[in-house]
Amino acid sequence: MTKGEDTKAAILRTALERASRDGFLGLSLGSLAQETGLSKSGLFAHFGSKEDLQLQVLDASVEAFVEHVVAPALRKPRGLPRVRALFDGWLEWSQELSGGCVFLAIASDLDDKSGPVRDKLVAYQRDWSDNLAIAASIAVAEGHFREDLDTRQFAHEFSGVYLAYHHHSRLMRDPEAESRARAAFEGLIQRSSARS
Amino acid sequence: MTKGEDTKAAILRTALERASRDGFLGLSLGSLAQETGLSKSGLFAHFGSKEDLQLQVLDASVEAFVEHVVAPALRKPRGLPRVRALFDGWLEWSQELSGGCVFLAIASDLDDKSGPVRDKLVAYQRDWSDNLAIAASIAVAEGHFREDLDTRQFAHEFSGVYLAYHHHSRLMRDPEAESRARAAFEGLIQRSSARS
Repeated sequence: MTKGEDTKAAILRTALERASRDGFLGLSLGSLAQETGLSKSGLFAHFGSKEDLQLQVLDASVEAFVEHVVAPALRKPRGLPRVRALFDGWLEWSQELSGGCVFLAIASDLDDKSGPVRDKLVAYQRDWSDNLAIAASIAVAEGHFREDLDTRQFAHEFSGVYLAYHHHSRLMRDPEAESRARAAFEGLIQRSSARS
Repeated sequence: MTKGEDTKAAILRTALERASRDGFLGLSLGSLAQETGLSKSGLFAHFGSKEDLQLQVLDASVEAFVEHVVAPALRKPRGLPRVRALFDGWLEWSQELSGGCVFLAIASDLDDKSGPVRDKLVAYQRDWSDNLAIAASIAVAEGHFREDLDTRQFAHEFSGVYLAYHHHSRLMRDPEAESRARAAFEGLIQRSSARS
């Protein structure tokens, strides 16, 4: 990494933390200059516009997500072990940044907007849904899940377990959030499983 | 209603729409003055501070939620019909305001904060969780749900179905969001039901 790349990675990390707390409404080149101690013109050298900054923060978020959640799961055996690893990694991910899941923080700002940032977020979310459905399909192929499983429905309900966990742990600070989420996930696994 | 109460109700309705779109980060007496065409000092007569405005918007949101979701469900027969009515009303609620569920829009802004607004939101969310668990308990008492049902877990998973629906319909504009949510809900009902 050159020094320039180092600086940029550090800026993006700060921006990512900030976005996890306040979404994209609180993120601007001005606020970021203040937080990093860099000049606004220095930031402009890395990010041409607020939109460019948001797009790059989104890419950096996905990179972090792949590193923390997807890559470790892919090192697990195909099928149920990988599905479980995706779930464990996803729960940990929600606590990885100070403000919780950056995608949810951003989603709440962008859901009524249109434009390239929203389009990119939606495309990434679709990729993630696809990945969950594919992980379920592999578990079917491995004989862990039943053959008539609707893998898209599985992916949908999987995301519901995560969203409820995030809501109950972060907003409500419910001490039972994790045990509830794990029970919900075990139920989902059980009803998806091949009869033994 | 006096004219003053009329005006205030209209301001609160505007504020509620605004909060559903942008959460509380986008809501200030200044932005509200602009949107309603009233003077900032006129607004100060109704809301002493930004915090007071937020607390009153929160109360108005709960009032609207009770009117749209809770009250109609309470007019249904006890047990499963009431549980179903809560679900149907909740799905409709998420489309009632232009920006979607106002509680979720606000939650995303407040989850890292502390103070009376967050406390009030959390208290209301706990009430709602309690209500869902109570509705499930009544369905147990009526013989619709099985006796060993964990009604808190039921409430948790119920909220997960809603959160996934909101995320998929509003952010991802997934045309299957509703049918997925209904299938997830039917699954939850089925596994909660007393064996017939």
